[in-house]
Amino acid sequence: MNVYFDNAATTKPFDEVIEQLSKFLLDTYGNPSSLHRLGVEAERIVKEAKEIIAKKLGSSSDEIYFTSGGTEANNLALIGCAFAHQKRGKRIVSTPVEHPSVISTLEYLERNGFEIQYVPVDAEGNLDFEQFEKLVDQNTILVSVMLVNNETGHIFDVKKLSEIAKKKNPNVIVHTDAVQAFMKEKTNVKELNVDLMSISGHKIHALKGIGALYIRKGINIQPIIFGGQQQKGIRPGTENMPGIFSFAKAIEVYEKLKASEPDKLRNIKRRFIEGLSAFNDVVINSPLEKTSDAILNVSFLGIKSEIFLHTLESYGIFASSGSACSSKGRTYNKVLHCMGKRMEIAESSIRFSFSYLNQIEEVDYVLECIEKSLRFLRKIKK
Amino acid sequence: MNVYFDNAATTKPFDEVIEQLSKFLLDTYGNPSSLHRLGVEAERIVKEAKEIIAKKLGSSSDEIYFTSGGTEANNLALIGCAFAHQKRGKRIVSTPVEHPSVISTLEYLERNGFEIQYVPVDAEGNLDFEQFEKLVDQNTILVSVMLVNNETGHIFDVKKLSEIAKKKNPNVIVHTDAVQAFMKEKTNVKELNVDLMSISGHKIHALKGIGALYIRKGINIQPIIFGGQQQKGIRPGTENMPGIFSFAKAIEVYEKLKASEPDKLRNIKRRFIEGLSAFNDVVINSPLEKTSDAILNVSFLGIKSEIFLHTLESYGIFASSGSACSSKGRTYNKVLHCMGKRMEIAESSIRFSFSYLNQIEEVDYVLECIEKSLRFLRKIKK
Repeated sequence: MNVYFDNAATTKPFDEVIEQLSKFLLDTYGNPSSLHRLGVEAERIVKEAKEIIAKKLGSSSDEIYFTSGGTEANNLALIGCAFAHQKRGKRIVSTPVEHPSVISTLEYLERNGFEIQYVPVDAEGNLDFEQFEKLVDQNTILVSVMLVNNETGHIFDVKKLSEIAKKKNPNVIVHTDAVQAFMKEKTNVKELNVDLMSISGHKIHALKGIGALYIRKGINIQPIIFGGQQQKGIRPGTENMPGIFSFAKAIEVYEKLKASEPDKLRNIKRRFIEGLSAFNDVVINSPLEKTSDAILNVSFLGIKSEIFLHTLESYGIFASSGSACSSKGRTYNKVLHCMGKRMEIAESSIRFSFSYLNQIEEVDYVLECIEKSLRFLRKIKK
Repeated sequence: MNVYFDNAATTKPFDEVIEQLSKFLLDTYGNPSSLHRLGVEAERIVKEAKEIIAKKLGSSSDEIYFTSGGTEANNLALIGCAFAHQKRGKRIVSTPVEHPSVISTLEYLERNGFEIQYVPVDAEGNLDFEQFEKLVDQNTILVSVMLVNNETGHIFDVKKLSEIAKKKNPNVIVHTDAVQAFMKEKTNVKELNVDLMSISGHKIHALKGIGALYIRKGINIQPIIFGGQQQKGIRPGTENMPGIFSFAKAIEVYEKLKASEPDKLRNIKRRFIEGLSAFNDVVINSPLEKTSDAILNVSFLGIKSEIFLHTLESYGIFASSGSACSSKGRTYNKVLHCMGKRMEIAESSIRFSFSYLNQIEEVDYVLECIEKSLRFLRKIKK
């Protein structure tokens, strides 16, 4: 039996996406910038896909810009905003538990004269609101806080943060990395009151290589890639048609699955947590109430993450020791570490992440295998 | 009958690519950064694809970096190189007939303190070598000249340009935009003596949304997108697996087609040019000997490009008035204009571009339709 519980790293494209993609590629191969019928048809597909995404975000379709993925969306948001607004100030406020595509971009901006301030996050995953409020000032041009943490699933109260930030400085632009939240949590940009939002296709069973950035109308963003007039020059280059098509299609399929079984992910996670309570020295880093239903981060104390992952893999179970984007060459979970968790916890953490393609029965199999693994690994340890 | 003669804008993915893609998406959905078997398998696909591309470029596979397309590859080459080497100098030498993704990027660099010098190109498409030699000096850090012009098909002697440039300043880095040349012209990076080369998938019947940049080992390039450790940090972000897979597959199919009929594109173009000689007031902007076999730019004097395009489309013929990347909102061909061609020629030019999916018989149909169109359009003009 194979169980894929690494859906926060990437998901399997929906069967419907794959099936319809073939026909799409045969029929609609024009370049959206071409002036003839094949181009117009391709352009229509791009527009329709933007409308489908916009509907999910409560935005207008001309506020959606396609990128090559979540990483580029985050880069465009941060670099594009920072350089466009540097005359107003040089301060950016964020958190230390952001995805590497945000952290590395902030480091790049720091090397280029911007001042980056990180609001601490406590062991329960709570952001220090008071500290946050203090940090936002008249020189702050941008706030970037993720909606759902990719390692622990912690949900940040972006709505409240935006409120606080804009109260202290109405000119502050608020960005949220919603890559792990999209389709799972509420991502209405108006309700959250965010100006920029990054999302990604391959986390919701679309193809890899496609993402999007919501840019609120009126927000000035400098491109980071230059070229033709595609996407109003904000993100030039021939549009990734198969990616765009798959993104829109995956949203439609996802919505149907969710409507037919709204609590599926929550039930999977609940059963998993309940099952884990039978074992000793297990720390749940993603409590049911405060974190995404799609992510369960657990530490099996005394067993290094990598060892446990390999053992699970021998049973056909695929999970992760943390973000795939930072998995190579690290021996502890940086996010847990930043939250002030003991090293013992950060070193032994495993991230299980669920999708609508998982079945609740898989949890029972995984729990069985965990039991066997723990018995085996803890025995050989002694 | 439908005839797609707009292959320089984009191509239809090969049937073999589409067929195998479905299976690939079902089986190989892992994230190449994941440490488990599914990740390792995905990583292997990335590596194999790099090897297939590297073989075509005469490079090593670890000198290939995937991007979201030709536009991003050109951006990474130019911005990445300029900022990494700005301490050595601020001068960049290029031509006025480059693709918009090069021109716009050079304009961005100019706004950021770099000095861009453009070597003129004459009406025959020849670059002024003497002028070029004069322009390259000790402050020149980068030379960027395309291999095949996307509008006229003119082939530039990049090998000779590199020789001249490196003779005057051995530290000069030479980039070539080989998007229209890849698989059609010789693109061996060692023979051409280039340090950076951009290529794109969707021009050779792979998916849209994938490109690559060759970066010669030892050449220092700054990333333009920041994130995880993918592709040695030079181009982070989860790899576009379907795009990468399709790119490698398309190269294999292309090679077979080319081997079985090496002169196909040339024969198509020759028959087209011969047929056009029967008409009055037709100017061939892409002579058989100096330009790519895949591109035939023709001016039908007295008839505005757009009018002629629409008439052709009514016969099911798809062509272009110029680069799709700059087609919107322009009334004459900028490249022809830069070459010093009369406005009469630039205003009436049509680009027909061919691929291995075209048949020589299609040329006869197109010529027939051109004859009818000319008779009609020139009559109503009088």
